[in-house]
Amino acid sequence: MRKIHVIGIGAGDPDQLTLQAVRALRSTDVFFILEKGEVKADLTGLRRDMLDAHVPEGTYRVVEARDPERDRSAGGSAYSPAVGDWRSARADIYERLITEELGEEQTGAFLVWGDPSLYDSTLGILEEVLERGAVAFEYDVVPGISSVSALVARHRTGLNRVARPVQITTGRRLAEGFPEDVDDVVVMLDAHQTFRRYAQEDVDIYWGAYIGTPDEILVSGPIAEAAPRIERLRAEARERKGWIMDTYLLRRHPRD
Amino acid sequence: MRKIHVIGIGAGDPDQLTLQAVRALRSTDVFFILEKGEVKADLTGLRRDMLDAHVPEGTYRVVEARDPERDRSAGGSAYSPAVGDWRSARADIYERLITEELGEEQTGAFLVWGDPSLYDSTLGILEEVLERGAVAFEYDVVPGISSVSALVARHRTGLNRVARPVQITTGRRLAEGFPEDVDDVVVMLDAHQTFRRYAQEDVDIYWGAYIGTPDEILVSGPIAEAAPRIERLRAEARERKGWIMDTYLLRRHPRD
Repeated sequence: MRKIHVIGIGAGDPDQLTLQAVRALRSTDVFFILEKGEVKADLTGLRRDMLDAHVPEGTYRVVEARDPERDRSAGGSAYSPAVGDWRSARADIYERLITEELGEEQTGAFLVWGDPSLYDSTLGILEEVLERGAVAFEYDVVPGISSVSALVARHRTGLNRVARPVQITTGRRLAEGFPEDVDDVVVMLDAHQTFRRYAQEDVDIYWGAYIGTPDEILVSGPIAEAAPRIERLRAEARERKGWIMDTYLLRRHPRD
Repeated sequence: MRKIHVIGIGAGDPDQLTLQAVRALRSTDVFFILEKGEVKADLTGLRRDMLDAHVPEGTYRVVEARDPERDRSAGGSAYSPAVGDWRSARADIYERLITEELGEEQTGAFLVWGDPSLYDSTLGILEEVLERGAVAFEYDVVPGISSVSALVARHRTGLNRVARPVQITTGRRLAEGFPEDVDDVVVMLDAHQTFRRYAQEDVDIYWGAYIGTPDEILVSGPIAEAAPRIERLRAEARERKGWIMDTYLLRRHPRD
């Protein structure tokens, strides 16, 4: 039976690999690396460096494939049809990789930035491949340090305040309003700096980009003060590197 | 200057330590282990096993102290006064440990189960000690695999569904109602199996106890079916071990 590890490799700092992840890397015959259409050769390079550092040479193969582009023009808050097509296109690729590149008795792995449980599609796509029934395999999941955990660790703050909830959401959702009944909100996948909408409110922001890498940038403080700085640093970094990965926590002060 | 590491050591599986955590362990002179009043000698033992496995003998000292009991009888949804007293009592202990047990040029560490950012008081207490001004130190935070990440990895599911939010909250909050505008809710610190309130609703549960340890128990499925099984297994485990640590994800089906 083919086996697959879905391995969370942390948010960018290679030392965020867990011992369990290193063990999983070492038991893998074939690594599947999907490159985004965007300029993310940096990220592919970082993954190859991890393999070089932890897995004996000659014991594995790397198979790179091109990730299908997602049609982001479709719009709509759930943007389900476009996501559906994209998942299906991705499932085609995964199915082909597993069928053609992995021997019946071999172990493959997908390396996922952060934690595979948070805004990552790998698990859903593997389930879709299994449902199609063309190829059979077992799989397991190795949890990783998410960019959320890495962000707040660098800011030395908690995600939640004592006995209170925290919500993790997307920029698109935040654009619809600050979530109800929760004052601590982590925002991921925000290409539009939606935090600027709350610049007039009593909210602190803890922002980070390229967390755990040599390019890391951190900014925190009341949004009104921090937002212009974040905008400037974000634009400069994006210009310099060609891509950006950032995340932030919004902490609303209790209304008395 | 005294230095302190706040090290997330994962949810129970010693292999969930990150390479960064191992490095931090090895640079530590004095480990502070606070024992709960409850029967958690098991947990202290697990931490000592980690040190034995990763840090050369004779390079460190372990200082155990007794954690003050929290007065849980105070009630009220925020239970702030009791929490305030307890934090203050804890800050007294931390201040004494850092002042008396750590040399001026030494590095101490607090080992935190899961991730220090999630429902853990260590960072808040260290800030309180610093504010008091009686002892000065630098500190950093090493993120860990939270019980939340470990739970969903074992269930091989995501925390959020595509482009949707997830909320992390407490049993006490869940007792006040299912959170608004979010269908994926992780519940921690629930001594009362509050999920039973939703047994009549179209909700799936992914539950786990002692995740990542040899005692691990996992149950998932529609709440109506899973709840009685969880109640039974939970009671048996609690009886057998004297304590339980469990977490769960509730996934509400979209209302059409």
